[in-house]
Amino acid sequence: MRMYDLIEKKKQGQELSREELEYIVNGFTNGQIPDYQMSAFLMAVYFQDMTMEETVNLTMAMANSGDTLNLDAIPGIKVDKHSTGGVGDKTSLIIGPMLASLGVPVAKMSGRGLGHTGGTIDKLESFSGFSTVLSEEAFMEQVRDIHFALVGQTANLAPADKKIYALRDVTATVNHKSLIASSIMSKKIAAGADVIVLDVKTGSGAFMETVEEAKELARIMVSIGTMVGRETVAVISDMNEPLGHNVGNALEVEEAIGVLQGKGEKRLLELSLTLASYMLVGAKKATSIQEARSMLEETISSGAALAKMAEFVERQGGDAEQVYHPERLPRAQYEETVMVEKDGWLSSCCNKEVGIASLILGGGRETKESDIDLSVGIVLHKQLADKVVAGESLATIYGNDKEKIKLAAQRLAMAYEISQKPIEKLPLIKEIITKEDL
Amino acid sequence: MRMYDLIEKKKQGQELSREELEYIVNGFTNGQIPDYQMSAFLMAVYFQDMTMEETVNLTMAMANSGDTLNLDAIPGIKVDKHSTGGVGDKTSLIIGPMLASLGVPVAKMSGRGLGHTGGTIDKLESFSGFSTVLSEEAFMEQVRDIHFALVGQTANLAPADKKIYALRDVTATVNHKSLIASSIMSKKIAAGADVIVLDVKTGSGAFMETVEEAKELARIMVSIGTMVGRETVAVISDMNEPLGHNVGNALEVEEAIGVLQGKGEKRLLELSLTLASYMLVGAKKATSIQEARSMLEETISSGAALAKMAEFVERQGGDAEQVYHPERLPRAQYEETVMVEKDGWLSSCCNKEVGIASLILGGGRETKESDIDLSVGIVLHKQLADKVVAGESLATIYGNDKEKIKLAAQRLAMAYEISQKPIEKLPLIKEIITKEDL
Repeated sequence: MRMYDLIEKKKQGQELSREELEYIVNGFTNGQIPDYQMSAFLMAVYFQDMTMEETVNLTMAMANSGDTLNLDAIPGIKVDKHSTGGVGDKTSLIIGPMLASLGVPVAKMSGRGLGHTGGTIDKLESFSGFSTVLSEEAFMEQVRDIHFALVGQTANLAPADKKIYALRDVTATVNHKSLIASSIMSKKIAAGADVIVLDVKTGSGAFMETVEEAKELARIMVSIGTMVGRETVAVISDMNEPLGHNVGNALEVEEAIGVLQGKGEKRLLELSLTLASYMLVGAKKATSIQEARSMLEETISSGAALAKMAEFVERQGGDAEQVYHPERLPRAQYEETVMVEKDGWLSSCCNKEVGIASLILGGGRETKESDIDLSVGIVLHKQLADKVVAGESLATIYGNDKEKIKLAAQRLAMAYEISQKPIEKLPLIKEIITKEDL
Repeated sequence: MRMYDLIEKKKQGQELSREELEYIVNGFTNGQIPDYQMSAFLMAVYFQDMTMEETVNLTMAMANSGDTLNLDAIPGIKVDKHSTGGVGDKTSLIIGPMLASLGVPVAKMSGRGLGHTGGTIDKLESFSGFSTVLSEEAFMEQVRDIHFALVGQTANLAPADKKIYALRDVTATVNHKSLIASSIMSKKIAAGADVIVLDVKTGSGAFMETVEEAKELARIMVSIGTMVGRETVAVISDMNEPLGHNVGNALEVEEAIGVLQGKGEKRLLELSLTLASYMLVGAKKATSIQEARSMLEETISSGAALAKMAEFVERQGGDAEQVYHPERLPRAQYEETVMVEKDGWLSSCCNKEVGIASLILGGGRETKESDIDLSVGIVLHKQLADKVVAGESLATIYGNDKEKIKLAAQRLAMAYEISQKPIEKLPLIKEIITKEDL
């Protein structure tokens, strides 16, 4: 087999076999296929697309390119969740404790944040002492014991995906649905869960700007999961504005705790319950979404989810007292209010600008090596379609550097537009794709 | 400017500006743009194509990427010729002396052969002592003095083309007309001639298999030349079988001398006269193709072209006596006849197989570093559509190694097919594209 011939074959729009895709993925991962051939191949894929079978074979070749987790030693149906990325998304911090308190094993690998979106691991490190470095054994044992553990993605999980993504990132071949789907699913499959619930974001701040695009991506991912025997569901959710009020690491943990205390922002709660319901049904702990939802609501009202959060934090070395006293989480030195500039209705929010404002404050990483300041961030007081009056508070900025606060405030002011006419509130959940919809 | 954005722009089918194409060509040539971005870009060009203006700008950026020859110091209109490559093509060896004997300055840069097609420089080295290494000054002086000089392409002529071609060759992006056209024309433009006549081959042994494809490529090249002020004509000629009888370095020189002696094979003579006629008219030494043709025929019957060949060979250090006594050219030790296997009509010839048979004998290079044996080759006794009888001689193989001769004979026998029905002879000249046809 020669890479040249496989580039030519895809260029001509022909279907590649499983063996051919494995040859490409393995050859590229071990360095036998050079970057310049791989990037030509990826561009040919962009134009000629891949069949569903090719996409599945590519995904599995990537999933099998490094370590794969075998969760069989943990009793029960293991569930996992993935979001395509959004500003202010802290649902993992809410869903994990809720499900674990119902006895569903949640064995989760997460990433750190890069650019304008945050990472769950960074957020959790707001608890003093919290560690996401666990041996595989300790990880499995913790899931068996308390039904929830969260670790950093190991370096050798789907290394092919890591290397291919880095190349796509510099050759303008990121935005292709089959490639996005195989990238996400290869990692989820390698991480070993039986049930995978995907949160596919759509809107101005998301990768998939339109619902149609998001649906197509969702359908591909659900097909991949289904074809390789993983129960997969995709929830398509709105990302035209940040999720919830808080953006920034400790601030997001605080908001997640608030949800578990029964005082969460409505949309954040709604999305968490929806995602968790499908996970609960997938885990066969509920027979319907309605039933699952009541069970989950009960974990909040009973305090079981909050208690599970404390147990989880403590087990991973963190200070559980901060769960019950979130005011003890890192808190920035200064705060500044950003005012609404004119009367009207909040008509659009440039999500990315909000994320960048938080990044400027020090709450995110510009490069992989950057240090982050867990205490800084933004609390938004208004949401899209809200009626606003000039001079009232739009948001509060929390920072440790007055110069950076000033820059972030400018950025934030530019992020919103105000209309003179009322705006219709967009639904949060756009669509749900299950294997029945394929 | 960022290469990433330019890949994205081309991927989306947008037109790149002159500045953008210069940035790409110069950045890639000086190593600032990595191979993997360039190959992704080339694949995007393959799918999205380039406008005529982009193709011209790409060509000029490549032409200007290294040294360019200024032939102004040579009086008169300078002419050049290029063939897209075929087996047995020795027209340069015929056209140069004919035109020079009529006072037309022919300042030619040529390449060496690679793979199954030969190079003019290799062929000329069949004359003992012949050198194609001349200083630019000596080259110019020779053209001024005797109107014909031929040198090897300098390393720094269109270096961008060399580097881009090497990348295309391993990323399945060779067969795209705008890229082929810009590659050829960048070198011709950098080489400085005022008039460029192109021989675009078509048929089973050519890059462009169909006449339609060849016409499209021809049109692009004539457009480029015209837009940058070079008088450009393209002759589309048949390459369904080798040109003339002889294939192999010294054998081809011998056949070219035969043409200048007035005993040339008909199709080889016809193509040489056609190409040279357009060059003569371009050089304003004749007012019509008919007039040009008579003048050129006269250079053969008068012996002027043959005398010019001898003068040219001597001037570049070769043994001019070999021009008058071609039997003194290198000659292989052994010969073997390949027989016709059955009665019928020669119906198809796999050109490439004939070229490879010569390569096997040692007459070509498998890699750039290979040594070649100038004395070996093949003389074909039959042409397509000829009536043949089993047992008569199809070809004679000349070689210095009996094992290789055996392999070449097997290859050659497989190259031809014999039909039971008469075959129509294909015309040699398919079409001529001038700027009036654009």
